[in-house]
Amino acid sequence: MRASRYLIATQKETPSDAVVISHQLMLRAGMIRRLASGLYTWLPTGLRVLRKVERIVREEMERAGALEVLMPVVQPAELWEESGRWQQYGPELLRIRDRHGNAFCLGPTHEEVITDLIRNEVNSYKQLPANFFQIQTKFRDEIRPRFGVMRAREFTMKDAYSFHDSADSLQETYDVMYNAYCRIFERIGLDYRPVLADTGAIGGSSSHEFHVLAQSGEDDIAFSTDSRYAANVELAEAVAPGGARPEPSCEMQEVYTPGQKSIPAVNDFLKADPAHSVKTLIVLGECTQGETPPLLALVLRGDHDLNTLKAEKLAGVASPLQFAPESRIAEELHCTIGSLGPVGMEIETIVDRSAAHLADFICGANRDDYHYTGVNWNRDVKLDRIEDLRNIVTGDPSPDGRGTLEVRRGIEVGHIFQLGDKYSRAMNATLLDENGKEQLMSMGCYGIGVSRIVAAAIEQKHDSAGILWPEAIAPFQLAIVPINMHKSDRVRDKCEHLYEFLRSRGIDVLLMDESKARLGAMLADIELLGIPHRVVIGDRGLEKGVAEYKGRADSEAQDFALSQLETVLLEKIDR
Amino acid sequence: MRASRYLIATQKETPSDAVVISHQLMLRAGMIRRLASGLYTWLPTGLRVLRKVERIVREEMERAGALEVLMPVVQPAELWEESGRWQQYGPELLRIRDRHGNAFCLGPTHEEVITDLIRNEVNSYKQLPANFFQIQTKFRDEIRPRFGVMRAREFTMKDAYSFHDSADSLQETYDVMYNAYCRIFERIGLDYRPVLADTGAIGGSSSHEFHVLAQSGEDDIAFSTDSRYAANVELAEAVAPGGARPEPSCEMQEVYTPGQKSIPAVNDFLKADPAHSVKTLIVLGECTQGETPPLLALVLRGDHDLNTLKAEKLAGVASPLQFAPESRIAEELHCTIGSLGPVGMEIETIVDRSAAHLADFICGANRDDYHYTGVNWNRDVKLDRIEDLRNIVTGDPSPDGRGTLEVRRGIEVGHIFQLGDKYSRAMNATLLDENGKEQLMSMGCYGIGVSRIVAAAIEQKHDSAGILWPEAIAPFQLAIVPINMHKSDRVRDKCEHLYEFLRSRGIDVLLMDESKARLGAMLADIELLGIPHRVVIGDRGLEKGVAEYKGRADSEAQDFALSQLETVLLEKIDR
Repeated sequence: MRASRYLIATQKETPSDAVVISHQLMLRAGMIRRLASGLYTWLPTGLRVLRKVERIVREEMERAGALEVLMPVVQPAELWEESGRWQQYGPELLRIRDRHGNAFCLGPTHEEVITDLIRNEVNSYKQLPANFFQIQTKFRDEIRPRFGVMRAREFTMKDAYSFHDSADSLQETYDVMYNAYCRIFERIGLDYRPVLADTGAIGGSSSHEFHVLAQSGEDDIAFSTDSRYAANVELAEAVAPGGARPEPSCEMQEVYTPGQKSIPAVNDFLKADPAHSVKTLIVLGECTQGETPPLLALVLRGDHDLNTLKAEKLAGVASPLQFAPESRIAEELHCTIGSLGPVGMEIETIVDRSAAHLADFICGANRDDYHYTGVNWNRDVKLDRIEDLRNIVTGDPSPDGRGTLEVRRGIEVGHIFQLGDKYSRAMNATLLDENGKEQLMSMGCYGIGVSRIVAAAIEQKHDSAGILWPEAIAPFQLAIVPINMHKSDRVRDKCEHLYEFLRSRGIDVLLMDESKARLGAMLADIELLGIPHRVVIGDRGLEKGVAEYKGRADSEAQDFALSQLETVLLEKIDR
Repeated sequence: MRASRYLIATQKETPSDAVVISHQLMLRAGMIRRLASGLYTWLPTGLRVLRKVERIVREEMERAGALEVLMPVVQPAELWEESGRWQQYGPELLRIRDRHGNAFCLGPTHEEVITDLIRNEVNSYKQLPANFFQIQTKFRDEIRPRFGVMRAREFTMKDAYSFHDSADSLQETYDVMYNAYCRIFERIGLDYRPVLADTGAIGGSSSHEFHVLAQSGEDDIAFSTDSRYAANVELAEAVAPGGARPEPSCEMQEVYTPGQKSIPAVNDFLKADPAHSVKTLIVLGECTQGETPPLLALVLRGDHDLNTLKAEKLAGVASPLQFAPESRIAEELHCTIGSLGPVGMEIETIVDRSAAHLADFICGANRDDYHYTGVNWNRDVKLDRIEDLRNIVTGDPSPDGRGTLEVRRGIEVGHIFQLGDKYSRAMNATLLDENGKEQLMSMGCYGIGVSRIVAAAIEQKHDSAGILWPEAIAPFQLAIVPINMHKSDRVRDKCEHLYEFLRSRGIDVLLMDESKARLGAMLADIELLGIPHRVVIGDRGLEKGVAEYKGRADSEAQDFALSQLETVLLEKIDR
């Protein structure tokens, strides 16, 4: 591409309404422009990147055996009523009426449409498994669209849906898709993690999110230093500490702790380590309707945090989790919250694995202004039920037994999901099995935020000068920068020759052929755009027989002999 | 592609709701499925064709120097209010409101969005000309969607918009786009015509439609047998007959024609040729408001039809054209409509070029039940004003002087348009010219109905067995059909080998590898799908050392020696 026939559209000023760096850089690099809240036009530079992501996604989906289809953006309400989501889905579902008053929505996802298609096209187990994908415009009416294309209202998504006659077949395709997703993010060149995810309200046996690691991510991800294990922090299992619990070494004593009610305060006062104390939280238990729910005690190590998701999934615990009102604690346990402890506690007590491993620990004495020290399980307090109650922390052992956990922030760019029969049941998508018996299909669904990947890649890699693209999705692979091309035929000839040579090798080249452009401005644009390689050609260099090369991430430029320039560039460019 | 991993989804029955052949065949060949009125899902076979059309369009747009962008489907009302189209556009513009109550529309076209973008990005003549295109989902809320994807509500369109600092620059890009469009339709392999079109209400100096010729087309197109001239029948110029008007050869006579009021009736009665008679139509002339419009007479040959568009563009004629009420004709001209004629007519009379060429003709005598015969211009009746008033008919000379005109039906698949400053004026899109003076930009716009091309290609070429694709957009180029593959290793090996060989040469092959599929059913599917080439491989042929080849349009299959099969196929397939 010649800059003289291109729209570079870079901006020096950082737009005031852009908060995150990817949004700022996409505007400054002339990749996108805002049309309205959450609606963006992709300019040529942005679209080049988007198309490269799309191509990799498409190739890997096809390699994984998925067939491409294209479903409408506008979907009839009837199907959403069948699945029950017309009512369930919040105001992100933009509901519209056509000129005849019929109700439609702009599709945020296509489970209903594909299920309707497949229940009509497929009726025998022989036609399954089948897997369909599309790369298509989606709409979600976000209440507060932000972060540019990261959380836009209109966006490009790859969504795939698979159909099966058994759970095994679903698992098989799920695994194929898991691997296809890994290849996609590897080929794009991102530092990513497949992360065990919550299956949420849908149930289903398995779900993974794919996160691009970036400081600005909205999700905390725990992953192993030594294995592929990764999970949302909320879901990562906190395994029991290794080895046996230490033996008691001192007697339990009641100590006076006047006015000390929080873990830090008590431990400061007693000059102790919070990791050797426990905290006791009172929550509501399950009960049949109309009854007063019983109280339950949850006991965690003083330095650990309760994981609500884990707690509310436990038998006997009310879901969603509810803390007991102070009045009931005062009335039934006869003390205030800051002095609670498991010793002598008469309600059911669930102890976290790490807390259960302590010896000689500190806890509240269930009497205001008093704590116990030197408490030991079984000797001083019963230990009936041990569960995983807490959030993991950096340094915890990995649940798969390999390495320890680290916590980093991630941006979700993909999600794969075993839906089971949620939609096929609601919409009566059945097939005849080998015995001619009617059964519900099983479904999987697999999403990738194609436009979001573009922003996530920038969040992951940029510097003060601009974007650092992974080579596979850079808008151009190399820029040729002539110095005073309009004054020097020699410079022009050399640049034109190099341009044609590299293009003939299938390389995406940008020739900065705008006459009178200043060198500094051109180099700044190239860095802002994140073009991985650039060559500067000028009369002074040509006299010495050299051209100047610099990789986008290099700290210094380097001269190469003109005689070797083409060979060097072909080696440096990742093709 | 292997049929065993593909969704062929053919249907034997012709769907009852499909009227036109392309709609029927697209449903039967498993290309599309209806989701709701005017909304279609593209199945794998349909999408393969759509993508091939898209690719050709994209390549030629890029070759023509246009830059690809991607604008949102959802557009804010404000911009349409600025251009005035929020009010002007009919109910085809689907107006919606988001969760905050803000007004938007689903874009049927993107003049407003691109003009808004360019007025912000471009401010100097040095940045122009610029030309941007997108291939994108459009929505038009048709009152009665029909003919499948031919007139769907949601469809894929390529739209391009160019910006200029002068009319010359606009004309230059217009010509480039004209040629790009010709290359696109040639590469796709369609019989098409670029057709002079009406610039309608927008004005502008030039507009061409691109029509695919097909009997089922909705538009009548006149085109020359011997040149590239083509125009909508409504716009084609009817040139004056060659040579001088014949000399009068008989006297004018008033003849009694009791009750004969129409041209056929009068000519039957007088045993004359309508081509030697004239008809006289009374219309309203222009007038200043409040005045009674004067009457005007339009005189045409008896066998010709008035062209309303041409008439209402003439000076002195009311636009839109209005016929005079019978009461005024009776009152002012003293006769009824069936007896009107130019002889002695006291109101202004405009004579069509062909009528003006007649001698010894018949016309009404302005007296009920009487006509004149042997009438001659200038001798019996004055001839002040001659104009082109009529629709052309087959056999008319071509306006460019080369060949004669034929009329065929066409399907509009493209439209290019010089918009001038319609949008830049309304939306204040200005630039600074060479002298630093602010001026309005000039614009061109260029559309192609990408999804409509798919249907139009089928309308143009099909037979009783199914579709005949142009090779460039066929879903597959070749099908390999094994006979009893599941029983014969030899057949399987030969088919697999041929499949891999052709794929390695970049050919789109469909291997019919579904075990137990019947040969007749497979061949019927291949013909229905319109795959241009197919090879049948069976044990009996292999024993004789041959395979059977048939081109989709061939009447007979042909055996080829296995030793030459690959060479023969590579020759036959258009690559």
